[in-house]
Amino acid sequence: MAEFSLHPRLAQDTEFIAALPLSQLLLVRDARYPWLILVPAKPGLKELHDLAPEARARLMEEIAETSKMLERLFTPDKINVGALGNLVPQLHIHVIARREGDAAWPGPVWGQGEAVPYAAAELAEIKERLKIEISRTVLE
Amino acid sequence: MAEFSLHPRLAQDTEFIAALPLSQLLLVRDARYPWLILVPAKPGLKELHDLAPEARARLMEEIAETSKMLERLFTPDKINVGALGNLVPQLHIHVIARREGDAAWPGPVWGQGEAVPYAAAELAEIKERLKIEISRTVLE
Repeated sequence: MAEFSLHPRLAQDTEFIAALPLSQLLLVRDARYPWLILVPAKPGLKELHDLAPEARARLMEEIAETSKMLERLFTPDKINVGALGNLVPQLHIHVIARREGDAAWPGPVWGQGEAVPYAAAELAEIKERLKIEISRTVLE
Repeated sequence: MAEFSLHPRLAQDTEFIAALPLSQLLLVRDARYPWLILVPAKPGLKELHDLAPEARARLMEEIAETSKMLERLFTPDKINVGALGNLVPQLHIHVIARREGDAAWPGPVWGQGEAVPYAAAELAEIKERLKIEISRTVLE
């Protein structure tokens, strides 16, 4: 049986934050938005409905907890959630904290301009805040 | 208690297809893509996590069934699912059948160009196909 491994493009563009019960939680290296990605850690997934119903429900809970965590940490105006996969075929779900007037507002973030790298200290700090916050989140 | 009513912008841009157990299923009037929208028919929702856990799980099942229906009818290359709401604050979930080389491929469909109206006969046909297909779908 094939094992799960993170798509190289996702590995390249993100920082690992935590292993949730179903998904890997990743931070996109783009300082323009607090932008997280959930990747269900099962091999061969492309669409949401490739997951079994119980796993889909689990994923929805991880999306909800990730969204609420972003709200607590960044008080955004809106959370954007998207599963696109037109470029990277491995199932992954974007959860993004959006703010009125941010670099892509009110449009979607995908395909808008170039990623802005985090400064090293800024990246270390946001990773630490996310890791502490997710460790406080009960995910049964 | 406030009652649910569809946001005027959603009402203006879509055709009603069916009332699912949780959501209204709507067709976007844009012939460039088979583009459906699910609107949970409860008042005051903005984010996915505003729904109670049971309703979130229900919504995930309606997203999965809607996605599978689009695959059966249109054999797309990818399904795109998104809950953005930067412009229309009422919680609504896009489920779109994407094809390589379509008008926005590989980017997201939102904010890309102008909607292309369906011809009247074409709109009647796609609505009929969707209504027949959803009536055959078991949504418990």
